[in-house]
Amino acid sequence: MGVAKRMDLLGSETAFAVSAEAATLAATGKKIFPFHLGDINLPTPATIVSAVKEAIKAGKTGYCPSPGIPELREALGKDVGDARGLNYGIDNVSIQPGGKPSIGKYIASMMEKGDVVLYPNPGYPIYESQIEFYGGIAHPYGYIDSPDGLRLDFDAIEEGIRKGAKHIFYNNYNNPTGASSPDEEMQRLANLVVENDMFLISDDAYFDTLYEGTPRSIASLPGMYDRTLTMYTFSKKFAMTGWRLGGAIGPEEVIDQITRLNVNMESCTTHFIQHAGVAGLNAPKEETQTIIEELRNRRDILVKILNGINGVEAHMPEAGFYVFPKITGLMQRMGFNDVEEFRKSTLNETGVSFCCRHHFGRPLQGETDFYIRMAFSGIGKDDLQEGMDLFRNWIDSNAK
Amino acid sequence: MGVAKRMDLLGSETAFAVSAEAATLAATGKKIFPFHLGDINLPTPATIVSAVKEAIKAGKTGYCPSPGIPELREALGKDVGDARGLNYGIDNVSIQPGGKPSIGKYIASMMEKGDVVLYPNPGYPIYESQIEFYGGIAHPYGYIDSPDGLRLDFDAIEEGIRKGAKHIFYNNYNNPTGASSPDEEMQRLANLVVENDMFLISDDAYFDTLYEGTPRSIASLPGMYDRTLTMYTFSKKFAMTGWRLGGAIGPEEVIDQITRLNVNMESCTTHFIQHAGVAGLNAPKEETQTIIEELRNRRDILVKILNGINGVEAHMPEAGFYVFPKITGLMQRMGFNDVEEFRKSTLNETGVSFCCRHHFGRPLQGETDFYIRMAFSGIGKDDLQEGMDLFRNWIDSNAK
Repeated sequence: MGVAKRMDLLGSETAFAVSAEAATLAATGKKIFPFHLGDINLPTPATIVSAVKEAIKAGKTGYCPSPGIPELREALGKDVGDARGLNYGIDNVSIQPGGKPSIGKYIASMMEKGDVVLYPNPGYPIYESQIEFYGGIAHPYGYIDSPDGLRLDFDAIEEGIRKGAKHIFYNNYNNPTGASSPDEEMQRLANLVVENDMFLISDDAYFDTLYEGTPRSIASLPGMYDRTLTMYTFSKKFAMTGWRLGGAIGPEEVIDQITRLNVNMESCTTHFIQHAGVAGLNAPKEETQTIIEELRNRRDILVKILNGINGVEAHMPEAGFYVFPKITGLMQRMGFNDVEEFRKSTLNETGVSFCCRHHFGRPLQGETDFYIRMAFSGIGKDDLQEGMDLFRNWIDSNAK
Repeated sequence: MGVAKRMDLLGSETAFAVSAEAATLAATGKKIFPFHLGDINLPTPATIVSAVKEAIKAGKTGYCPSPGIPELREALGKDVGDARGLNYGIDNVSIQPGGKPSIGKYIASMMEKGDVVLYPNPGYPIYESQIEFYGGIAHPYGYIDSPDGLRLDFDAIEEGIRKGAKHIFYNNYNNPTGASSPDEEMQRLANLVVENDMFLISDDAYFDTLYEGTPRSIASLPGMYDRTLTMYTFSKKFAMTGWRLGGAIGPEEVIDQITRLNVNMESCTTHFIQHAGVAGLNAPKEETQTIIEELRNRRDILVKILNGINGVEAHMPEAGFYVFPKITGLMQRMGFNDVEEFRKSTLNETGVSFCCRHHFGRPLQGETDFYIRMAFSGIGKDDLQEGMDLFRNWIDSNAK
């Protein structure tokens, strides 16, 4: 049996290899400080846990409709709509087993073979993987490091548009960079999408994990309601990563096609978990606010420590789980030319485990700086402090 | 936004339309007798329900490995291996959110575009849908109605092989027909697979819902271990349809590719449900035996009633949830030429709802008889009896 040729086009999340490496080292007895995880080490809110038990007890254990139970479709449409000043009804929502499934389902149903698709790089590696798996031309756009934060590289976006890009993935509150768009940047992107008759997939995984102010969605801008598919996940806001619950929200024509793929791929998303999702959307705000507060504390500590290290420059992320420090100067001080070698040395010497820029896409032409991604969602404050002390000590003993 | 051309190739489960029709009629106050459902109206065993609560309490709510938690991979490999006299280790198992996901994942990873793939028709409609979606040539094989039961049409299978078929879907204990292979039929099929260097996907959804004797798998026959992927589901044996838990079991080369698709499609199957799966595999046999006994009773009542109707011929299924009676004679007596019209009239006149042969694949050349599928998994004995009484009365008042 040979493997089908199309599998050569399929990518992966190489961050999993970092997890595996850390786990192997942990098994030898070494203490690991897990800054590599996009997972969250906080419990799922009690309201949601109670609701799932009730739903099982009430016999919600049989099949349910492929696009989801009506109660959750309605509640999620309302929640996503209210937060964006938009109106989404039940027919605008297809429930999925997580946030991720919407990526491949959108691509499979709406991207013609040979279409050019813009996607962020650094970015979540599954965009590129799914575009190429289904025969599209993946055109990356990066970020420009400015004093105010990372900014979309519009030169790369416009180059993609000149090549005929019809679709663009946009992950405001970006993983791994933590970048978020100021108003004028988001408007400029929306204008390009409307003017060039494109469609945008807004990965809103971290939309509800904003630390200050009110989150903004590009779907709310004029002309964008009909051109945006929002990828929603319960994973991050509700500490439900392992529950596998999310949804695609957008124009009915797209939602209907995505649901056709659900019928073919997994029949439906776990029935009783959908009832827990309804409970989560209706839960007291305090339950999720506790999660946000804990994450904010970790973020503040981590960014402060990082910026106190000579040769490290970290922007403060507005949302999400990740700091994306530039470490070019530190690597020079430590005598490293290869960021992967630096990562491995740090892991072996200190137990501090993190991912690097190259785990989030193939490096782009002209990149000379080195970046790492440090997640603060999977490590408590005490361990965070202990790990960073070890990291600093190791640097102080070895750097020029 | 246009829909991608590949979506023209995607099929569906048209049985869902029957469910929707029944639900619409029920909403008007009409009592529906649901013989159309492949769902099961019995509770999930208590051991499994306890285990899922424990797992949530123990914090199994974060991500877990894409191919599944090691405990479940090991337990499922052992369970499937022991029941087939084979040896499957952890690397032979990829956990999936249901039985269905393995169909598309096998096709995507192992079927080259243009490959000929044999599949049962009547059969589960997603085989054909996924073969064609990924650009394969779907070659159907049917069943020949004999006094002893439905037998594989080897003429059609051999025709597919002459056309170069490389893969074959085989659903012993078939949905919708209830057909199962005698030893010599299974051996003849295995011989063809080995001689022609083919690979077989054994959909074993109903393997553990056998009413008498010991189930047999084609994977156990000489030369087949390396040529068989077993599709396992917790849905039917454990009354867990809405939980979405299953797995692909087979050669490591195939399992690895399927897991790569898991990484891209849904990251992992719900974490705590996998612990419930381990508990199910280790649960006292009595808990699942109760389910089997109840289903056997329903089956016996239903088949007896059906064969008591002039113009209906039903084989007794050895396993599974379905009776597939030939109703050609009855339709003549009732003055129907179109089985879909007969279905709708029955539903409207009596509330008895069932699927027909055409919900399980495009009719083949030369088919002249009419069949319907009556599921006995979603309807209790009393309702089963009441519905069939109404069906019989309607026939008695209207048939020639």
